[in-house]
Amino acid sequence: MAENTSSARLIECLATTDSLAEIFSNQSVLQAMLDFEASLARAAARAGIVPEAAAHAISAAADASQFDAAGIASDARKSATPVIPLVAALTERVRSVDADAAQYVHWGVTSQDVADTAMILLLKRAQPLLAEDHARVDRALRDLSEAHAATVMLGRTLLQPATPITFGLKAAGWCAALNRSWWRLSAAWRDALVLEFGGAAGTRAAFGDRASVVAMELASDLGLSPAPPWHTDRDRIGAAIAAMGLFTAVLGKIARDIALLMQAEIGEVSEPGGGSSAMPHKRNPSGSVVVMAAATRMPGLVAAFLTGMVQEQERSIGGSQAEWPTIAAIVQTTGSAVAALATALEGLRVDAARMQANLNATAGVVFAERAVVLLGPALGRVTARQLVTEAVRRSQELRRPFHEVLRSMPEIAHGSATRALDDLDRPDQYLGDAEILRRQLLDESAVMPLEES
Amino acid sequence: MAENTSSARLIECLATTDSLAEIFSNQSVLQAMLDFEASLARAAARAGIVPEAAAHAISAAADASQFDAAGIASDARKSATPVIPLVAALTERVRSVDADAAQYVHWGVTSQDVADTAMILLLKRAQPLLAEDHARVDRALRDLSEAHAATVMLGRTLLQPATPITFGLKAAGWCAALNRSWWRLSAAWRDALVLEFGGAAGTRAAFGDRASVVAMELASDLGLSPAPPWHTDRDRIGAAIAAMGLFTAVLGKIARDIALLMQAEIGEVSEPGGGSSAMPHKRNPSGSVVVMAAATRMPGLVAAFLTGMVQEQERSIGGSQAEWPTIAAIVQTTGSAVAALATALEGLRVDAARMQANLNATAGVVFAERAVVLLGPALGRVTARQLVTEAVRRSQELRRPFHEVLRSMPEIAHGSATRALDDLDRPDQYLGDAEILRRQLLDESAVMPLEES
Amino acid sequence: MAENTSSARLIECLATTDSLAEIFSNQSVLQAMLDFEASLARAAARAGIVPEAAAHAISAAADASQFDAAGIASDARKSATPVIPLVAALTERVRSVDADAAQYVHWGVTSQDVADTAMILLLKRAQPLLAEDHARVDRALRDLSEAHAATVMLGRTLLQPATPITFGLKAAGWCAALNRSWWRLSAAWRDALVLEFGGAAGTRAAFGDRASVVAMELASDLGLSPAPPWHTDRDRIGAAIAAMGLFTAVLGKIARDIALLMQAEIGEVSEPGGGSSAMPHKRNPSGSVVVMAAATRMPGLVAAFLTGMVQEQERSIGGSQAEWPTIAAIVQTTGSAVAALATALEGLRVDAARMQANLNATAGVVFAERAVVLLGPALGRVTARQLVTEAVRRSQELRRPFHEVLRSMPEIAHGSATRALDDLDRPDQYLGDAEILRRQLLDESAVMPLEES
Amino acid sequence: MAENTSSARLIECLATTDSLAEIFSNQSVLQAMLDFEASLARAAARAGIVPEAAAHAISAAADASQFDAAGIASDARKSATPVIPLVAALTERVRSVDADAAQYVHWGVTSQDVADTAMILLLKRAQPLLAEDHARVDRALRDLSEAHAATVMLGRTLLQPATPITFGLKAAGWCAALNRSWWRLSAAWRDALVLEFGGAAGTRAAFGDRASVVAMELASDLGLSPAPPWHTDRDRIGAAIAAMGLFTAVLGKIARDIALLMQAEIGEVSEPGGGSSAMPHKRNPSGSVVVMAAATRMPGLVAAFLTGMVQEQERSIGGSQAEWPTIAAIVQTTGSAVAALATALEGLRVDAARMQANLNATAGVVFAERAVVLLGPALGRVTARQLVTEAVRRSQELRRPFHEVLRSMPEIAHGSATRALDDLDRPDQYLGDAEILRRQLLDESAVMPLEES
Repeated sequence: MAENTSSARLIECLATTDSLAEIFSNQSVLQAMLDFEASLARAAARAGIVPEAAAHAISAAADASQFDAAGIASDARKSATPVIPLVAALTERVRSVDADAAQYVHWGVTSQDVADTAMILLLKRAQPLLAEDHARVDRALRDLSEAHAATVMLGRTLLQPATPITFGLKAAGWCAALNRSWWRLSAAWRDALVLEFGGAAGTRAAFGDRASVVAMELASDLGLSPAPPWHTDRDRIGAAIAAMGLFTAVLGKIARDIALLMQAEIGEVSEPGGGSSAMPHKRNPSGSVVVMAAATRMPGLVAAFLTGMVQEQERSIGGSQAEWPTIAAIVQTTGSAVAALATALEGLRVDAARMQANLNATAGVVFAERAVVLLGPALGRVTARQLVTEAVRRSQELRRPFHEVLRSMPEIAHGSATRALDDLDRPDQYLGDAEILRRQLLDESAVMPLEES
Repeated sequence: MAENTSSARLIECLATTDSLAEIFSNQSVLQAMLDFEASLARAAARAGIVPEAAAHAISAAADASQFDAAGIASDARKSATPVIPLVAALTERVRSVDADAAQYVHWGVTSQDVADTAMILLLKRAQPLLAEDHARVDRALRDLSEAHAATVMLGRTLLQPATPITFGLKAAGWCAALNRSWWRLSAAWRDALVLEFGGAAGTRAAFGDRASVVAMELASDLGLSPAPPWHTDRDRIGAAIAAMGLFTAVLGKIARDIALLMQAEIGEVSEPGGGSSAMPHKRNPSGSVVVMAAATRMPGLVAAFLTGMVQEQERSIGGSQAEWPTIAAIVQTTGSAVAALATALEGLRVDAARMQANLNATAGVVFAERAVVLLGPALGRVTARQLVTEAVRRSQELRRPFHEVLRSMPEIAHGSATRALDDLDRPDQYLGDAEILRRQLLDESAVMPLEES
Repeated sequence: MAENTSSARLIECLATTDSLAEIFSNQSVLQAMLDFEASLARAAARAGIVPEAAAHAISAAADASQFDAAGIASDARKSATPVIPLVAALTERVRSVDADAAQYVHWGVTSQDVADTAMILLLKRAQPLLAEDHARVDRALRDLSEAHAATVMLGRTLLQPATPITFGLKAAGWCAALNRSWWRLSAAWRDALVLEFGGAAGTRAAFGDRASVVAMELASDLGLSPAPPWHTDRDRIGAAIAAMGLFTAVLGKIARDIALLMQAEIGEVSEPGGGSSAMPHKRNPSGSVVVMAAATRMPGLVAAFLTGMVQEQERSIGGSQAEWPTIAAIVQTTGSAVAALATALEGLRVDAARMQANLNATAGVVFAERAVVLLGPALGRVTARQLVTEAVRRSQELRRPFHEVLRSMPEIAHGSATRALDDLDRPDQYLGDAEILRRQLLDESAVMPLEES
Repeated sequence: MAENTSSARLIECLATTDSLAEIFSNQSVLQAMLDFEASLARAAARAGIVPEAAAHAISAAADASQFDAAGIASDARKSATPVIPLVAALTERVRSVDADAAQYVHWGVTSQDVADTAMILLLKRAQPLLAEDHARVDRALRDLSEAHAATVMLGRTLLQPATPITFGLKAAGWCAALNRSWWRLSAAWRDALVLEFGGAAGTRAAFGDRASVVAMELASDLGLSPAPPWHTDRDRIGAAIAAMGLFTAVLGKIARDIALLMQAEIGEVSEPGGGSSAMPHKRNPSGSVVVMAAATRMPGLVAAFLTGMVQEQERSIGGSQAEWPTIAAIVQTTGSAVAALATALEGLRVDAARMQANLNATAGVVFAERAVVLLGPALGRVTARQLVTEAVRRSQELRRPFHEVLRSMPEIAHGSATRALDDLDRPDQYLGDAEILRRQLLDESAVMPLEES
């Protein structure tokens, strides 16, 4: 069957999206490298180094659809870079049209100028795809938070019932972490969109006194920032890589929460889709699974990049050559996570009744801390805590409501303290600053401080 | 240009080989999953659960070339597994030929039975490819070690000249570490070639009392070992993954040594190939670079796998779903490293004269330890060390041969100690057990203890 | 307040045990290095290289309690090894007693001989501590599996109810993975207990023709295996490190399962201990938390070790020097996990009634797969699956028992198929090979294949 | 021998500094937790919740020197947090002085409020220590760059001679990457200095309508920023952690370069110190080794932190509990690297003559690219490259100077092209924009953009 070679491969189908897979496809990668070569020829022509006609010929030949990607990939291993066979093929194509122009192909630059700038161009194309899905997640979380500002649920610590919270607060906490991480990523990404242009050893020596002009023209032609060569200084890409790691971890936290809340025995939220190949009754948290798979892989991928940063002198023996598959995996994995989470959240069903029921099912013991607070003034906190601890024990043993057990204890039943317990098990009375914090979290995540600069 | 979709992709061209890329290509992955479904139908037929005709129809339909891999990859994200769309497509194809047979497709199993067994089948195919290149490395190292048993060179510690060794000893050390790591990998790999067959929750309940029979038939049909289901117990694959991490680290150590020895200023070995796109005079350690790139990426990839092993209950939310791209990257990366190293070593040129020249260039200070040993009996080790340290200092300051400086020191020149220094700077006299150890290392790496069992 | 300097530090109190903390304490580390120096002197004396009296003096001085660990630690950074200041201090102490003996301190060896062998001696002491806690986990899991061979519970896939299993099968699966991983670890640990003894560049040149004798005596004195020097070949330790990573991942899987099963809303098991500083009612899965913390840290620590394995020539610039804290963290983290899990499992309470109740709460939809199997012969699997899917939908919508809904469907109510459904929701009738597999898993984990050799 | 319990431990002596070791010592960690409890009491007193006298009593009791750190560390494993035994001990100490005050200890907060804020307080103390050493590195690099603006040396790519650069440019490149990474770290560090104060489930419910007041007072008392609770949102710390990973990678790149340039066969720079325990003649790159050890460990440690970020609901089961040892290791490792590099660079000796000699030793083949550039106009680039490639081959084969060989080739000797080669092997004529780029790199790293905001 005919195969679309620019779509996601089966082996990594859960770790990408179709549009990101296209960006790292052979055609796209080839074209990015060829775009550098074509821009270089034009920039050098503008600087008077290369004849206009040659620049035209090179630009015209730099069409990825005319190259044999598989052959280049295979030959790349001989020289430890795909650029050498690519430049040979491009030179050959130019020569077949204009022999003179052929001598200006790849003029004055080095393999890593091509490979690095190509990767930056791919990153530039990938960013809006992630931004779009991030915006969907952000919107969905804000909507959920607003809609459930007053939806009371159990807080859960160490997977055990704690005191109550609201689902609105939970969603706002997700939203704030999401956006803090997104801003960091956006800033790092923007800073990484830098031209690589250094020539053999990073001095641009082959361009003589025209080097700065060519650099400016080339950056401008490619829509990248100019900067001194950074062949073995990978911190800008590294910062974007690390920021994707942090961002995906935040997505993972949200996904894990959803999958936990969606357990049949809890049933407080559910994702829209996801069946089973064996069991007709199954409804799986498929979106969360894709996100969790991403969060599982990411820390090691980030580590792989960091490991490669310790590069030798003016060009590494392995560090930079290790980057392409790592970067591609990281960008696609991040993208798969944010896309999957967006879909899961946009269709998320929240079951407020079930949340209340789960709270009720604790028989009120989650208000034990509150009981200590309420009884403290009358009985002293130490005594209060002792009575409450005993009441919790009896409540759980006898399966009777905590507040009944507590009220029936002689120290309380006969004292003035009993009145203090009037609202004991009303969760809405024990939400503390939940609403204040919720608004604060949403507000702080609505401004993007770094973008202002 | 027509593209061979089963070859290495450009973005990871340095991180695979063509034959390993084929194994993880869409066709190959699809076929492995279909092979499971076809074998299952046949095994169930043999167990009397599925009609023979249905098993035939399913087997006939299970031809990867007839499926739309890209569509399946894209649909996989909805259910967090490629198996659901694959089974749907297979069922459809069977139905179009034999409606009755269609109901037996994927009978009684779960998505992960298919996905896991398919991965194991791919691992089974990949192993001989690695074994072949490992054998080339092994052979090349033995040949180098034998050929250079007496080739004296500087030992280098912390990248500084230490006492002399032989290149034969160095190569034997590489060889021993290589083979220890290979044996570990071989044993772990063999243990991992296990059928996954558990059904919905790992009890094979849908097969009633025929479950064991189907399991044996299925394992036998696929050429895998039978075993209880291991849906969330990933330690066997994990052990193979970790062993690949260790193996690649060993390859990385060899490659780093070669790249260091090949530095122009040292020039003791050189790889056969590798030019530069910018500089006509360059000769690059291209093979070592590919190996080092692999060694750079591997630790993080291993960590990614380990992270995913902490899986939930009877089927994970992310852990197992994260594995495919990680395993594929690890196997291909390992394969790229061992293939590149084989080629580098088979063509390695060793410059014994340069080794001797580099030794000479130290002006004999590398024999300082030896001088202490030789002078110790006569002068006491403390005094000997003081004199030697002073002689080293003067030798380096005055750029005069160490042994001359030492002999000219009054404490030595006029004493009987001078005779002890007669052979001081003959490296062949200060090789200790180099040859004994060399043989020992080669001998121990010629037997494969684990394979015997 | 007086402080026991060999106990666990607060900053890593959850990542070790007291007894493992002692092993990596200053006194213990110092003593291990001094043990090497003392053994070396004795071995060299036996080989006739060092006078007996000097060996005695060095042995007597090699008492860690007499050294300033903090000073040595601080000075270590100047030479990138603690061995240089240690040897200086030892030499000084010996000299103060026997000036002649002082010249034989550290005779003929290199810093890494000391540092490596010391670490191996520490590993040798740590192994039985882990073995003891592993045996506790193994025993607890076998007991749980036998006691609950017939305790039916929900299998859970992707955190959703799947078909039933037994708790006995689950515990047996844990047990098998535990022991497979333990065997790998035991074998790797045993192989790593190897003397390091190579001298300046790994040839033992300073020992002349007595080198082999000294090596054998030294290994024997320290209770380690002899082997050629392995200064930059770290695969044996690496294999033990990786095996600890795998082992801890398996422990993590068990701990995660426990924490999930202990959720208040599920309540199928509970750990013995663990309160809250804020909430009197809380009962936390404290043991599982310690294990999960270990499993969280481990993959990165393993990666750190693997990264350091790519070492330069005869002695690395950073790789080996990075190992000590990593190895200590890995061993202690592994030990903290196995100890915590042992305690959690030994006191684990299993609530069979709650397991049954959770099964019942699914209203029988978990038998949907079974219904397809049972109805298949009469209706064809395709029709059966359609009916069952519809019945699941109605059951969940109407909150009515699945089997009632199914039986009331016209296609079934009026046909012969209804009889096939008689036992539909008896979980004990849909356990497949659970008991066979349980025994198989326990049996296979009772033999230790590698130890036999 | 008496031991300073707050100094670096031997097992991690190369992975910390004495002052950073003190910050993570038992006394320091205990005091940070107690500082939180004391500040809380005072803040609650100011908010009218706790009596002044109780706040005084609690503050007075919160003196780390009076607590049994080892006992708390050991007890911590029972509840998976050191806070529970610490609060028990503090309550006991307060009670022994003022029984009433005891009931206000730890009022309304949760264990993680204490543990997290304590860690933030430690980070706050650590930052200036790193800043000081970073400033030393920055200063040293600027001085080196200015002093060697015109010191010509070989650029080296893939460890082979490339075209010439200046050492000033190299140092400026190091400096720019250093400062970019430092700014990122500084910004992330500053953002992470945030109070943790949420109570049981993050709503501060126990404080009723006084919660915000207490939060502000507490933050102000501790010198931290106030913020909504972040119990399971670890991205701020994570960003600082990742930034330390990137920063250390940059330090590692510098250290690796130094160690490579210091190889005896290259000898272009040398570190001030570092001897050998075996060989009197050795001079080791000890500072670089400490940095490289740090860079080796860091990626895995960063991965360990990222892995733990995917935390459950309102409090994790393992994720946050895994953080303390990881953060402490990361901060100390970073600090050890920057301190060691500062010392190495402050004493770095640069051998300009050796740099020139190494350039000369290439016999001019590093000017091959330049020859193509110079001959291009006269002969066409294709012909020029062919001639040059042939001349390189002959030069290396005959060991004759490249420019002589080239000039003697008939195509050049007899043509006008020969004049173009007049300056061929003057490296100062082929430095391109080295000086412009050098200034640019130093200038850009002199401003700290993020601090301005």
